[in-house]
Amino acid sequence: MATRWPTLIEEGDGLLILDQTRLPREAVMLRLASLEDTAHAIRVMQVRGAPLIGATAAYGVALGLAGDAGDARLQHVIETLAATRPTAVNLHWALARMRRVVQESAPATRRDVAWNEARAIATEDKAANAAIGQHGLSLLAAIHAALGKKMGLPPSPLPRQGGDYFGQAAPAIVNVMTHCNAGRLATVEHGTALAPVYAAHAAGMPLHVWVSETRPRNQGLLTVWELAEAGVPHTLIADNAAGLLLMQGRVDLVVVGADRIAANGDTANKVGTYLKALAARAHGVPFYVAAPLSTIDFACPSGVQIPIEERAADELGAGDVPVANPAFDVTPAALISGIISECGIAAADQLEHWRP
Amino acid sequence: MATRWPTLIEEGDGLLILDQTRLPREAVMLRLASLEDTAHAIRVMQVRGAPLIGATAAYGVALGLAGDAGDARLQHVIETLAATRPTAVNLHWALARMRRVVQESAPATRRDVAWNEARAIATEDKAANAAIGQHGLSLLAAIHAALGKKMGLPPSPLPRQGGDYFGQAAPAIVNVMTHCNAGRLATVEHGTALAPVYAAHAAGMPLHVWVSETRPRNQGLLTVWELAEAGVPHTLIADNAAGLLLMQGRVDLVVVGADRIAANGDTANKVGTYLKALAARAHGVPFYVAAPLSTIDFACPSGVQIPIEERAADELGAGDVPVANPAFDVTPAALISGIISECGIAAADQLEHWRP
Repeated sequence: MATRWPTLIEEGDGLLILDQTRLPREAVMLRLASLEDTAHAIRVMQVRGAPLIGATAAYGVALGLAGDAGDARLQHVIETLAATRPTAVNLHWALARMRRVVQESAPATRRDVAWNEARAIATEDKAANAAIGQHGLSLLAAIHAALGKKMGLPPSPLPRQGGDYFGQAAPAIVNVMTHCNAGRLATVEHGTALAPVYAAHAAGMPLHVWVSETRPRNQGLLTVWELAEAGVPHTLIADNAAGLLLMQGRVDLVVVGADRIAANGDTANKVGTYLKALAARAHGVPFYVAAPLSTIDFACPSGVQIPIEERAADELGAGDVPVANPAFDVTPAALISGIISECGIAAADQLEHWRP
Repeated sequence: MATRWPTLIEEGDGLLILDQTRLPREAVMLRLASLEDTAHAIRVMQVRGAPLIGATAAYGVALGLAGDAGDARLQHVIETLAATRPTAVNLHWALARMRRVVQESAPATRRDVAWNEARAIATEDKAANAAIGQHGLSLLAAIHAALGKKMGLPPSPLPRQGGDYFGQAAPAIVNVMTHCNAGRLATVEHGTALAPVYAAHAAGMPLHVWVSETRPRNQGLLTVWELAEAGVPHTLIADNAAGLLLMQGRVDLVVVGADRIAANGDTANKVGTYLKALAARAHGVPFYVAAPLSTIDFACPSGVQIPIEERAADELGAGDVPVANPAFDVTPAALISGIISECGIAAADQLEHWRP
């Protein structure tokens, strides 16, 4: 892990972020030194992925309080960052937490308080995603065991960190399909949807990941980039190919991240997720959402209330033609086999037990 | 229509085709003078769309018989053209018809016989698609009437060519979604899926078409190009956005073309079609396939037997990464509300009555 490009690290009184608009062509760290830098980076998707947006915005509050840390300034800082992206709820969750903590402290200490709280959010994100990885690993192990049984393979020991998972001559390969990038690049570390994949890969389980291109912004190429970096076998497909692969029985599990999960389990995620959920259901393939609790918006009763961000027409790159470009869609809870958070794996319509 | 670029016309002892690999950037006619030119044009998709491939291949037989028109040469010509694309059945239908007619004639007359038969195939394609347009118009009129009724509008006269469809102050707009290009560019004239759209537009019905980009080759941009040329309102979307639009109730009808329809109604069409069919079903939106009878492969019992063309990895333009690139998928007959051919509109599982 030490040789990998970090998504976000502190550097002096600023931040370094991996500029995701330049991936996979080139890996370049970009310095954010101000509120404006941070808001711009989130808006233009130099940082992206709901958990990473949350952590970056938290640091943005600290950067924004460098000079004036009074209430009016705090209000301006929060509002500026809140306006960058409408759908990802982690952004608003992180800003609400920062506001609460900062407001309780004396203006002279606010900058330090904000830095510490942002650091805590980033650290907690890593821990939550690591836990998601371990919960998801149990799910992948169950699927792997079922596939092995179907192939007539002998039962295998439980996976263990760094282990040779099965030592079988022709082990069952678990085919995972994902959408967009919900890997380590979408988080401070480990990823959400890909955390179980990395945990299983580390345990020696044979895996292969189908990666959809994810038009219009092609975040699937980020997923390809990080899976290649981690040595996880993978294949890029056009978004359109997902239905055929599911029909052909070439997918054992679909797992995606989330930008906002409503209290009833309806999930907003990158546009195109819903089509995969429908196709998974049509072919009896489990469809899971992996996200930290900070992605669940208990104030939002259902998917109907989730605002869908409409992004610029030029993202489609088709020139001067009429374009509609919604960035997210909503997958109904009824199509979701389960939600994986740091607290475990829950039925999508049973999230009440996770309400803070 | 006179000012529009033709997709295919005879010129002397050759053919002129509109090079669709250069659209929508530039409209350029390309001359095909030999068997090799024709096979190349089909393979690299300078001509594309199942009906247009069929007609072009028919002319390719005529071009291939220019010198030697013996049985061995005929066999070579047919085999060369048959090997260009595996999924579209119109290609094989046209070649079988050409072989039958040419074989029955004396070698000295074969070249003229082939030209005449190719011309007949092209002429019949135009007529079949015009009929598809009229049958589909009745379907669109029924949907339009239902929408108007829901909006409390007074009943309207039946549409008529060149007519002012309703003369209503706020007419109901029929929102059609399509995939890929099954318009006039995919045929000799009129289109298949878009033939009803053009017929309704000509009748003055207010329409709007959602056009999916259709990765990886972006044939949706061809659809945008020809809808703009015809003055039909339209909006380009990423393929991923189809599910959201259907969920939001912004689509009244999905209509697509076909590359091969099995005897049981299962339909191979451009990859991604199946995802739209699933989403249409989930939201109770009618999903129709429009294709001439030559697209129905009565020798193919079901979709399972339809070969799916795998195209080059570089079509995704992602550089040196592992890629799977199936060009088609199969939509089960059970998801298809009806099939529109020159013979009318039939339930997808009732195609036996159309068997020749």
